[in-house]
Amino acid sequence: MTAYLSAESAGPPAAPPGGTAPAEDALAALTDLVRADIEICNRLIVERMQSPVALIPQLAAHIVAAGGKRLRPLLTLAAARLCGYPPGGTRHVSLAACVEFIHTATLLHDDVVDESALRRGQASANALFGNKASVLVGDFLFARAFRLMVDDGSLKVLAILSQASATIAEGEVLQLVTQNDTATTEDQYLQVIEGKTAALFAAATRVGAVVADSPPAQEDALDAYGRNLGIAFQLVDDALDYAAEQETLGKTVGDDFREGKITLPVLLAFARGTEAERAFWRRTLEEREQTETDLAEAQALILRHGALRDTFARARAYGEAALQALSIFPEGQERRALEGVVAFCIERAH
Amino acid sequence: MTAYLSAESAGPPAAPPGGTAPAEDALAALTDLVRADIEICNRLIVERMQSPVALIPQLAAHIVAAGGKRLRPLLTLAAARLCGYPPGGTRHVSLAACVEFIHTATLLHDDVVDESALRRGQASANALFGNKASVLVGDFLFARAFRLMVDDGSLKVLAILSQASATIAEGEVLQLVTQNDTATTEDQYLQVIEGKTAALFAAATRVGAVVADSPPAQEDALDAYGRNLGIAFQLVDDALDYAAEQETLGKTVGDDFREGKITLPVLLAFARGTEAERAFWRRTLEEREQTETDLAEAQALILRHGALRDTFARARAYGEAALQALSIFPEGQERRALEGVVAFCIERAH
Repeated sequence: MTAYLSAESAGPPAAPPGGTAPAEDALAALTDLVRADIEICNRLIVERMQSPVALIPQLAAHIVAAGGKRLRPLLTLAAARLCGYPPGGTRHVSLAACVEFIHTATLLHDDVVDESALRRGQASANALFGNKASVLVGDFLFARAFRLMVDDGSLKVLAILSQASATIAEGEVLQLVTQNDTATTEDQYLQVIEGKTAALFAAATRVGAVVADSPPAQEDALDAYGRNLGIAFQLVDDALDYAAEQETLGKTVGDDFREGKITLPVLLAFARGTEAERAFWRRTLEEREQTETDLAEAQALILRHGALRDTFARARAYGEAALQALSIFPEGQERRALEGVVAFCIERAH
Repeated sequence: MTAYLSAESAGPPAAPPGGTAPAEDALAALTDLVRADIEICNRLIVERMQSPVALIPQLAAHIVAAGGKRLRPLLTLAAARLCGYPPGGTRHVSLAACVEFIHTATLLHDDVVDESALRRGQASANALFGNKASVLVGDFLFARAFRLMVDDGSLKVLAILSQASATIAEGEVLQLVTQNDTATTEDQYLQVIEGKTAALFAAATRVGAVVADSPPAQEDALDAYGRNLGIAFQLVDDALDYAAEQETLGKTVGDDFREGKITLPVLLAFARGTEAERAFWRRTLEEREQTETDLAEAQALILRHGALRDTFARARAYGEAALQALSIFPEGQERRALEGVVAFCIERAH
């Protein structure tokens, strides 16, 4: 159980003692549902990241093959199944691989951007291989993603994923622009996370519907599901950066704080803070003058103003919207698995 | 007239005294030929790099709109004309803009990579806006290029340009891997420049043929033209880094040397050098221990061994191959304009 749960009233439910956390169960159910497909997808990913230039698969393997959750390709596969895509087909597998390649490319470029020391509990590709290699291998994977889509042959899919890619970049640039600026509004923050995170979730689930030739209403519903899920996912991520223990998450706690990223917990604590507290945020995030005890102080302020609790509450509201979007689909294991992902995204504090 | 010409026998011809250099004439003829198209293309470029996130057009304008020669889109436009693409059409203009966006994205990412202080005579985007913004705006332009291709609707064009994009990244990674390694072979060097430069030239001219629905032989001929031209272009670029005055070129002379890039002039001088000279190259390029006088010493060694002369000779040979590839097309102003580009690429020392 993470630290903030003992002090806040509205955190995610605790894991059963000695058992598996419900969040992990939810992701396991999804993985089980599409196990054969995700295994083919994993092989395709490894196959399509090959190059005679040895550093490319070497670096890509570090981030692609190093045990990511494969959340986004799982979403594509499950969405296709939910829409009745036939069992023998392989297009959804190719497109799931595209989605993972685009995600990986953004991670590699984000490493350059964020100088984060840990990613998925491992040293980041950037720290090991340098900025240059991260940028270029990211470019390679991005190009390969488009090549895979071309092989698939759907201009509609190409439109969705090229649009999503542009939106991701816009979100990341907006994040850069609002970084270190405590005058950032909640609207701007939402634009950032809709771009940098939710756009690819939405595209991942939408292409599942497209590949199954679903009617527009189902396509839109899966887009709405993915988009709301992505926002919930990022809200929780931003909350955890101030809440969880490093060992639990396998990511560096306090990254956002050190970089001066303006996230919802900070915006809420800033808005609710005293003048002295705002001076603290301005010094640490805008001027980036930070001492060793400042992260603990930031965590305490965020806790005191209920900013984590409210960030989680906001995440749950988006999670509800994601569930609601699924309601047009018949009950069944596919829908249950996708509903479970909402729980996974919100409860992954464990 | 640049320094190396007075000491080497086989440099490009001199500019007529007081007149325009033949190289500039050649590019002017090409620009004149497709003037209406390139103007629409320029407007399209500005239009499609817009975003509500203001930093994106701001940074993109710095590099896209800042008076580049537009060499690659000019090639697409002229190739389409050569293949009889009808005057009223606009597809070639869209695809020319795609090519320029991909080129610009690689320039932005190359700025991150190379830490070059000057590009086209201006402070690089990277120096002004930082690594992060260069990476992300490059990603945005790359995504926009694909979105433009999707709007055009040709899967064949998408295949050509996604493949070229992957090849560019491979070339750049191989350059990174061979950097600071004087054991690099000429073959590896050729692979690097075929990837990082010639692949996009070849794609730029090939899509001109594709858009005009040309027979495969013409498509292949224009690919061969672009590829050989691109290699010649890069060979000259690599020679000029050791030869020209900074004011002449508008690029930092000695960049490659300072970064320890292994280019043909260096490979030739190294192979022909004494043991003491090789020790010089190892110290300066592999260990990157450089003093203020080392660049001058490097230039002197390259001159002494005829390495610039032979690099230019190699460039002329690729230029000849490019001209040869055009021979299947009927004589006329389009073919003459494309022939002129070969002269431009080889003689742009002026």
